[in-house]
Amino acid sequence: MGIVLKGGRIITAADSYEADIKIEGEKIVAIGDNLECEGDKVVSVAGCYLLPGGIDPHTHFDLDVGSTITADDFESGTRAAIVGGTTTIIDFATQNKGETLKKALQNWNEKAKGKCYCDYGFHMAITDWNESICNEMGDMIKEGVPSFKMYMAYKNTLQVDDGSIFRALKKSSEIGALIGFHCENGDVIDVLVNEAKSKGNTSPKYHSETRPAEAEKEAVFRAIQLGELASVPVYIVHLSSKEALSIAMEARKRGAEVYVETCPQYLLLNDSYYDPKGEDEFSGAKYVMSPPLRKSDDQKSLWKGLKFNEIDTVATDHCSFNYKGQKDIGIKDFSKIPNGAPGVENRMALLYTYGVATGAITENQWVSLTSTNAAKLFGLFPQKGTIQVGSDADIVVWDPEYRGVITAENQIQNVDYNPYEGFDQRGKVLHVFLRGGQIVVNSNIVSKSPDGIYLHRKPFSKK
Amino acid sequence: MGIVLKGGRIITAADSYEADIKIEGEKIVAIGDNLECEGDKVVSVAGCYLLPGGIDPHTHFDLDVGSTITADDFESGTRAAIVGGTTTIIDFATQNKGETLKKALQNWNEKAKGKCYCDYGFHMAITDWNESICNEMGDMIKEGVPSFKMYMAYKNTLQVDDGSIFRALKKSSEIGALIGFHCENGDVIDVLVNEAKSKGNTSPKYHSETRPAEAEKEAVFRAIQLGELASVPVYIVHLSSKEALSIAMEARKRGAEVYVETCPQYLLLNDSYYDPKGEDEFSGAKYVMSPPLRKSDDQKSLWKGLKFNEIDTVATDHCSFNYKGQKDIGIKDFSKIPNGAPGVENRMALLYTYGVATGAITENQWVSLTSTNAAKLFGLFPQKGTIQVGSDADIVVWDPEYRGVITAENQIQNVDYNPYEGFDQRGKVLHVFLRGGQIVVNSNIVSKSPDGIYLHRKPFSKK
Amino acid sequence: MGIVLKGGRIITAADSYEADIKIEGEKIVAIGDNLECEGDKVVSVAGCYLLPGGIDPHTHFDLDVGSTITADDFESGTRAAIVGGTTTIIDFATQNKGETLKKALQNWNEKAKGKCYCDYGFHMAITDWNESICNEMGDMIKEGVPSFKMYMAYKNTLQVDDGSIFRALKKSSEIGALIGFHCENGDVIDVLVNEAKSKGNTSPKYHSETRPAEAEKEAVFRAIQLGELASVPVYIVHLSSKEALSIAMEARKRGAEVYVETCPQYLLLNDSYYDPKGEDEFSGAKYVMSPPLRKSDDQKSLWKGLKFNEIDTVATDHCSFNYKGQKDIGIKDFSKIPNGAPGVENRMALLYTYGVATGAITENQWVSLTSTNAAKLFGLFPQKGTIQVGSDADIVVWDPEYRGVITAENQIQNVDYNPYEGFDQRGKVLHVFLRGGQIVVNSNIVSKSPDGIYLHRKPFSKK
Amino acid sequence: MGIVLKGGRIITAADSYEADIKIEGEKIVAIGDNLECEGDKVVSVAGCYLLPGGIDPHTHFDLDVGSTITADDFESGTRAAIVGGTTTIIDFATQNKGETLKKALQNWNEKAKGKCYCDYGFHMAITDWNESICNEMGDMIKEGVPSFKMYMAYKNTLQVDDGSIFRALKKSSEIGALIGFHCENGDVIDVLVNEAKSKGNTSPKYHSETRPAEAEKEAVFRAIQLGELASVPVYIVHLSSKEALSIAMEARKRGAEVYVETCPQYLLLNDSYYDPKGEDEFSGAKYVMSPPLRKSDDQKSLWKGLKFNEIDTVATDHCSFNYKGQKDIGIKDFSKIPNGAPGVENRMALLYTYGVATGAITENQWVSLTSTNAAKLFGLFPQKGTIQVGSDADIVVWDPEYRGVITAENQIQNVDYNPYEGFDQRGKVLHVFLRGGQIVVNSNIVSKSPDGIYLHRKPFSKK
Repeated sequence: MGIVLKGGRIITAADSYEADIKIEGEKIVAIGDNLECEGDKVVSVAGCYLLPGGIDPHTHFDLDVGSTITADDFESGTRAAIVGGTTTIIDFATQNKGETLKKALQNWNEKAKGKCYCDYGFHMAITDWNESICNEMGDMIKEGVPSFKMYMAYKNTLQVDDGSIFRALKKSSEIGALIGFHCENGDVIDVLVNEAKSKGNTSPKYHSETRPAEAEKEAVFRAIQLGELASVPVYIVHLSSKEALSIAMEARKRGAEVYVETCPQYLLLNDSYYDPKGEDEFSGAKYVMSPPLRKSDDQKSLWKGLKFNEIDTVATDHCSFNYKGQKDIGIKDFSKIPNGAPGVENRMALLYTYGVATGAITENQWVSLTSTNAAKLFGLFPQKGTIQVGSDADIVVWDPEYRGVITAENQIQNVDYNPYEGFDQRGKVLHVFLRGGQIVVNSNIVSKSPDGIYLHRKPFSKK
Repeated sequence: MGIVLKGGRIITAADSYEADIKIEGEKIVAIGDNLECEGDKVVSVAGCYLLPGGIDPHTHFDLDVGSTITADDFESGTRAAIVGGTTTIIDFATQNKGETLKKALQNWNEKAKGKCYCDYGFHMAITDWNESICNEMGDMIKEGVPSFKMYMAYKNTLQVDDGSIFRALKKSSEIGALIGFHCENGDVIDVLVNEAKSKGNTSPKYHSETRPAEAEKEAVFRAIQLGELASVPVYIVHLSSKEALSIAMEARKRGAEVYVETCPQYLLLNDSYYDPKGEDEFSGAKYVMSPPLRKSDDQKSLWKGLKFNEIDTVATDHCSFNYKGQKDIGIKDFSKIPNGAPGVENRMALLYTYGVATGAITENQWVSLTSTNAAKLFGLFPQKGTIQVGSDADIVVWDPEYRGVITAENQIQNVDYNPYEGFDQRGKVLHVFLRGGQIVVNSNIVSKSPDGIYLHRKPFSKK
Repeated sequence: MGIVLKGGRIITAADSYEADIKIEGEKIVAIGDNLECEGDKVVSVAGCYLLPGGIDPHTHFDLDVGSTITADDFESGTRAAIVGGTTTIIDFATQNKGETLKKALQNWNEKAKGKCYCDYGFHMAITDWNESICNEMGDMIKEGVPSFKMYMAYKNTLQVDDGSIFRALKKSSEIGALIGFHCENGDVIDVLVNEAKSKGNTSPKYHSETRPAEAEKEAVFRAIQLGELASVPVYIVHLSSKEALSIAMEARKRGAEVYVETCPQYLLLNDSYYDPKGEDEFSGAKYVMSPPLRKSDDQKSLWKGLKFNEIDTVATDHCSFNYKGQKDIGIKDFSKIPNGAPGVENRMALLYTYGVATGAITENQWVSLTSTNAAKLFGLFPQKGTIQVGSDADIVVWDPEYRGVITAENQIQNVDYNPYEGFDQRGKVLHVFLRGGQIVVNSNIVSKSPDGIYLHRKPFSKK
Repeated sequence: MGIVLKGGRIITAADSYEADIKIEGEKIVAIGDNLECEGDKVVSVAGCYLLPGGIDPHTHFDLDVGSTITADDFESGTRAAIVGGTTTIIDFATQNKGETLKKALQNWNEKAKGKCYCDYGFHMAITDWNESICNEMGDMIKEGVPSFKMYMAYKNTLQVDDGSIFRALKKSSEIGALIGFHCENGDVIDVLVNEAKSKGNTSPKYHSETRPAEAEKEAVFRAIQLGELASVPVYIVHLSSKEALSIAMEARKRGAEVYVETCPQYLLLNDSYYDPKGEDEFSGAKYVMSPPLRKSDDQKSLWKGLKFNEIDTVATDHCSFNYKGQKDIGIKDFSKIPNGAPGVENRMALLYTYGVATGAITENQWVSLTSTNAAKLFGLFPQKGTIQVGSDADIVVWDPEYRGVITAENQIQNVDYNPYEGFDQRGKVLHVFLRGGQIVVNSNIVSKSPDGIYLHRKPFSKK
C-alpha cells in the first residue's frame, strides 16, 4: 500500500548514499534495503539521485506592477516549478499603500488558491509602515507567515525609510519573524536615473549603470547594522555583488546573524548582456531586473560564496514579462521596462550543471542551497527540505546522465524567452513526488489538477 | 619697525627648532638668528614654544536652537578662543527651512561682524535641499565659503535624505567644495528616543542610550559610500567612536578620500559622566551633546587615531548652554536638553596636556591637528596654519612650564560650567599675535575692540 | 537476525528526526518505522538520541616523550574513548630522527594492534625531512595513512623548517594527502623559555607566559601561506586563540582552503588555572599542554567559531600524564613538565553540556564537529561519521536526561586527575555499537576483548 | 660672509613657500626676505625649488657578492648620489660569518673613508647571531650605528632564523636601535629555485617566478609579529608588493609600529621586463634583484601607499652590476646572476616626474619620502632632512622646468645600463649644497675631492 523508490542514491544536505525510500500516504516512512512489502508499488530509480524537493523562497507570480502583470500566474508558475524540481515556492504578498497586511494576504490567497501545482507559502512585503502595521505583524505569524520583506529601493513606491525598518526589526524578534531586505539605496538610484534620463540615456544598459554595486553594498551594510542595533537576524534577498557579500561576511565575522540569498542569474550572467553586439540593442531588456547583472568578478565571488557556505539560499526572483508586449513598454525609457526575468523552471538544473558537475559545489551543497536551508530559515523544516523518515514525501528523482540545452521553445514557464537560451544542461528531473503523490512522470506533469496546498509555516527561531 | 620674537622654539607640523621670527605688518618676513634691526620691537620668548595660531573648524556661536540661544555669542566665544590660543574659528551658518543659502550667510555675517576677537569664516549647513540650492552652492564658493555641512541626524529638523546628500556631493566636485557630515542615523535615534520616553526614561543618561555608536558607524559608512559613488571626498565631523573610525580607515585603505575630525570631549570624557554617583542626577545634562560621550575603549581608539594620523583635525563643536537656566529646559525630558558643551578656550591646552605631555602625540602632531590640517582642508593654507615666511603672523607663544587646573571660575567662555572642571593643565598660552598684532599679553586679552576679520577661503582642492 | 534500535531520535550533521534503525552485520540496512522482522533483536532506545559514533582525530596513546610514557596506552585510551561515545580515534605515528616513515608506522601498528576497543587509524608525524621521506609519503597513502602532521614548535626536537613544510605540502597534492600543523613559532618559544629560566621563573604558569598567542598566530599565518603557495589545503591542529582563528578566517575569505581543529580544553578552560589561588602552586602542571590554555576572550571567540562553522573539528589532543609521578618531573622546571592532558572520555559530553544544552551550538553541529567533519577530512566518510543506510553501524545511544558531575574518581581513562573535575555534565552515553556489535551497555563496557580494527583510510580529496 | 639663496621656493615635508635662505658655515642661519648683508654671496635661485638634500637609506657600494664586486664603489656611487640630489646615503656594513660587528664596521669604514662626495652612515647587517653579537649591538650605538638589518631570505648565506631575529629585536629596544628586514621567505625560495633548475628553467624570468609575492607577504607578517612580540618597531626594507603592504597596514591599524620602505623600481617597473619580446632574452638580467619586479597591480598599490602615507621612505637599494661582464655570470643559471640594479642618481627625479608632476603625491610628500622621514627614522633629524634654521645647509636647488630623458650614456653611476633607459624626466638638480659648500653647480660636480663625512647617528626613539 506504500510506494518504494528502489535503487536510487539519496542526497541530502549532509549525506549521499544508496538506499530505498518507502512512502506511505504523504510521508516517508522508511529508508533502507528490501523495504517493499506486498501491495507496495515499486518505482525503479536505479542510476538516479533522490533529492528533497526544491524550495524556491523568492517568486513573483501574478504580480501587477502598474503598467502590466507578470506573464506567469500561480498556475503556469508552479507548473514550471514542479517540472523543474521545485516542490515548494514562497511568493511575496505585497501591501499596497494604505492597505492592511490582512487585506494583502487575502489578496494573495485569492490569487494562489486552487491554482498551484506545488506547495506554496507567502512572505509579506511591507511598503507602508505605521503603528497598526506593527501589530499586524504578529497576526501574520498566526496566519503562517513568519517572514517579511522590506524594500530599500524603489523610491516613492515600495521603499521604506530606516525608521520603519528599525521598528519592524525590533518587532520581528518579539514574534519570531525573519525580515528580508531588497538592498539597494533607492535615493542614489533615483538621482542617477533622473540624471541619465536628463542626458537622453534611455537604452536598457542604463538600467545597469544607474544601479551601481556600491548602492547595493551600502544598503547591505545598513540593513545589517539596523539588524544588529535591534539584535535580530536579517536576510538579504538576491544579493548580487562581490562587495556586498564581503560586507555581509564581515558582519557575520563580528557575530551578526545574516543570511544571504543569491539567484542563478547573478551566478551565470553578467552585464555584458546589456550591451549586445551586432544584435537588437533593446534585447538587453530581457535582463532588466534589480539588482542588475554585475561583472564577471562578482560572479566569481558569488561562486566562492556558495563553496564556502557564505551564501545560504539560491532563489530565482522569478518575475517574468514577455519580451514582446511587456518588456517593450520601456523601449524609449529604460526606467519603464518591467523589472524581472523567469527562472523557476531552470534553477535546480542550472545549479547542478554549473555547480555540481563542474565541481564548484558538492552535491550536498546543491541540496542545502536549493532546499534545506530555505526550509530551515522559513519554518518548513523538517517537514520539507530533507529526505528522512517522517518528512513529507517531496522527492525529486534526478537523472544525472541527461545532456541537453535550455531553450524557451521547450519551456513550461509562460514567457516568450529564456535568459539562459542555448545554455547546456546536465541532468534533469525525471519524476517528482509531492507529499507522496507522483506529479511528474518522465519529465512530464501528469497531475490533472493543481494539488499544491498552502503551507502554514512555523515562526522563525534564532540559531 | 618690525617685531622680533626672540629666543623661542618654533613648532610646525613638520619641524621643531630654535630660531627667531620677524614680523612686519601682518606677515612673517623672516626666520633666523639675529634678525632684529634698529627700530624693531623685540619680544623675548625664551623658553617658550612658538606655534601657528590654532584653527577651530567647528564652533556654534550665537546659535538659536529653538528653545534657547547658545550662551556664547561671537564676542565671548572668540574672546575665549584667542585667549586659548585659537586665532581662527570656522562657525556654521545654517539654512532655515525654506531659506536661501545667501540669506543664511547674510544672517551669520550679521551675527559675527565686528564682534570677533579672532579671524573667522563660515561653513554653510544645508538643511533643505532643492535644485536652486544646488546652484547656490556655487555662489557660496564666490563668497569664500567652500565648505558645507549636512546632517544625517535630527529627523524632521536638520536631517536631509540620501538623495539630497548625493546630489550635493556630486555638485561639490564641480565647484571645489568639501562637505562635512554629522554622522548619526537620525531615524534610528528617533525610534529609540520615542521608545525611551514612552517607557518614562527621561533622565540625561537616556540621551546616551538612545544614540548608540552603531548609529554613528552606519552613518559614517553611508556618507563615505555616497562620497565614493560621487567620486568626491567627505569630511566626518566630530567622529566619536572606535567602530566609526575603523569604518573610515577601511574606506581610506580602499582609496576613498575621507577626512576625520574629533573633539577633546571624545578623547577625554566618557559615558560614565551620564551616570553621576552620589550627585545631582541631572548633572549629566552638562555632557548632553551629539554624538554623546562614548566608552573608554572608544577614547583609546581615538588617541591611537591621532597617533597614527588617522584623524585629521581636533575641533571643539563648542556650543555652550548654561547648566542653570538652559540645560534645565530638559529636566523632565532628556530630549529637550539643549545639545552641546563649551571647549574653544581649552582645546590647545587639553591636547598639549593629555597628548604631547604624555607622549601620546608629538608636538608636531599637536600643531597639525589643531591648526595645519584644518588650514589645508578649509582653504586657508599657507596664509594660516603654519609658521613660515609669507604667512599671517598668527603666532601663539606657549609656556610649557605652566602647571594649573581647569575651572569654570576662571574661564573666559560665557557659560556657568566647564566639562573639564578640575582637570590638570600643563602649559598655557602666554602671548597671542593675530596678523602681527599682539592680542593676548601674559595670558590676558589686551585688545580693546574685536580685530578679527572675515576670511574669504579658497576652494577645496583634492589631494 | 538483525538488530532494531527502536523509538530513538536520530541526529546527523544535517537532520534530527524520529525513526528506527535496523542493523545487519556491521552495517545499517534500514531507517524507518516498523522495521523489525522475526528474529530481529529489538533494543528500545525511547527518549534517547542516536548519534553517529564520535571520531577523535587527535590522540596520543602509548607515547614515549623521553622522560616518561603517557599514562594511557591504546588499551586504556580506547576503552575510555568508546565509553565516552567515540568509536574511532586517529593517533599520531611519529617518525624518530633518522627513521623511515615505514618504520614509524610499523612501531605504531605494534603499539595498537589487538589492544583497541574502538576502531583506529594513524596520522604520520614527519620530524626529519629528506628526499626519501618525500617518496615515502606516497607509500603511506597505500598503507591507508592519507594525513600527516608537522610541528612548527619544539625547536631542536620535533620542529621542521619552512623548506621541509613547503616540500611536503607540494607533495601532498600529488598523492591526496592532508597535512596538519602544530602552529606555534618554536624559535620564539625557545627564546622566551630560556629567558624565563635564566630569571629563575620555573613554576607552571611560565609555561603559559612563554607560549604567547602571537606565536600561534604567526605560525598559523605561515602555515596557511605556505599552503597557498603550494596550492594545497592545510589543517590546523588544536587551534587555541582568537587571533589565530581570525587569521584562518581571513585566509578562508580570500579562498584558501583551511581546516580548523580545536579542543574542549580551549573552549572550557583558561589560563587562570595556571595561577591557582590558595592551592598547591604546582597544580597548574595539570594544564601544561601546548598550546597552553588562553584567555576567556579566546574561549568566547572559539565558541563563536563553532557556531558559525569556522571550526571544523573538536578533537582532544588526549595525552595523559599522572599528576603524581609524571607531571612532577618538572616540579623545579616548567619546561620539563610532560605536555598534555586527558580528555578522550569526556569530549562528547562536554560538547553536549556546554554546547548543545546551552544553545551555543545545535545538536547537528555537535555531530558534525565530533564526527562527520573528521570522517570527511580524514577519508572515512560515509563509512563512518553519519547514520545512513550502508554506513558502519557505529551508533551512540545518548541519554539526554542524565545529570551528573565529572570526576577523576569514576573515570576510565588511566590517569590520576581530570582537567574538568567537578564540572557538571548533562546527558551521557548509554549504549555504543561498533560496526554492529554492542560494546557499551548501560554505560558499561561489555566487550571482553578489544574489537577495534585498523582503518585503511581513503586519500584526501579537495572539496 | 654668508651665502644667500635668493628668490626660490622652499619645500619641506610640511610647507611650501617663497623665502630666501641664509647659510653661514655649515648651517642655515636664517629664512626670510632681504637677508643679505654686506659680504654675503648671493646665489639667485629664482624659479627654483629649494629642497632638503635627499637621504637614501639603502645603498650597497663596494659590495663583494662572492662572484663579483658591485660596479659602483663609494666614490662613483656617492658622486652619482649628490649629482642626483642625494646628500646623505646610508650603506650596509655586513657581517661575514664568524666575524664581529666591530670588524664589519671597520671594513666598511675603510671602504668609504675619504671617498664619499656626500655624507654617509652605515646600517649593520647581522648574518651570524650569537650571544656576543647581542652585546656588540650596544657597541654599535656608540659608534653611531643605531640601525641594523637582518635577512629572512638567502638561505644558507645571509638568512638568519626566527630565534636570532627575536633576540635581536628584544635587544633593540634596550639600546635604541631600529632593525630593518629583508622580507622574503628564503626557505620557500630555495625550494622553488631548486625545482626550477631541476626542470632546466634557467633564464632570468625564473628569478621572478621563484620569488613569489606570497613569500614576501609571509615574511612581512612574520617580521612584524616578531616585533610585536618583542614590543619594538620594525622597518621593512624594499617592500615591493600589494599584499605585503596590506599586511603592514593591517598591523599598523592594530597598533604595531611598522615602517615601510619601497624603491623606484617597484613603483615604475614591473615583471614584464623579465619577458622581453623580440629582444635578447637575457636582458631581463638587468632587472634581477630581490624582491623581483612585481605586477602592475602592485605598482598601483604602492603609489596609493605613497599618497596615503602608508609608505615612509623611498630608497634605491642601489647595487649595480654591469650587464656585460657581471650580470652574465648567470647567463646559464638565473640563480647566479648578481642581484641588484643602479638608481641612486635617479631617485629624486623619478619621484618628481612620476609622483609630483602627475599629481600622485604632493611636493611635500616628495620631500618627506626622499629625505625627512629617513632623517627621523635613522637619527639624523633635524640636522638633516629639513630646511630650518639650525639645520645643516644640505640644500638641493631644483629646476622644475627641465625636460629630458634618462639614459645610461649620460649617467654618473659607473655601470653600463640604466633600468629607466628612455624614461622621460621632468625637473632636475641644478645646484647642491652640502653642509654649506656648493658641490654641484649647474648640474655638474665641482668638488675636487670627496667632502662627505661619516655621520654619527643618534639612537632610535619610538614615536
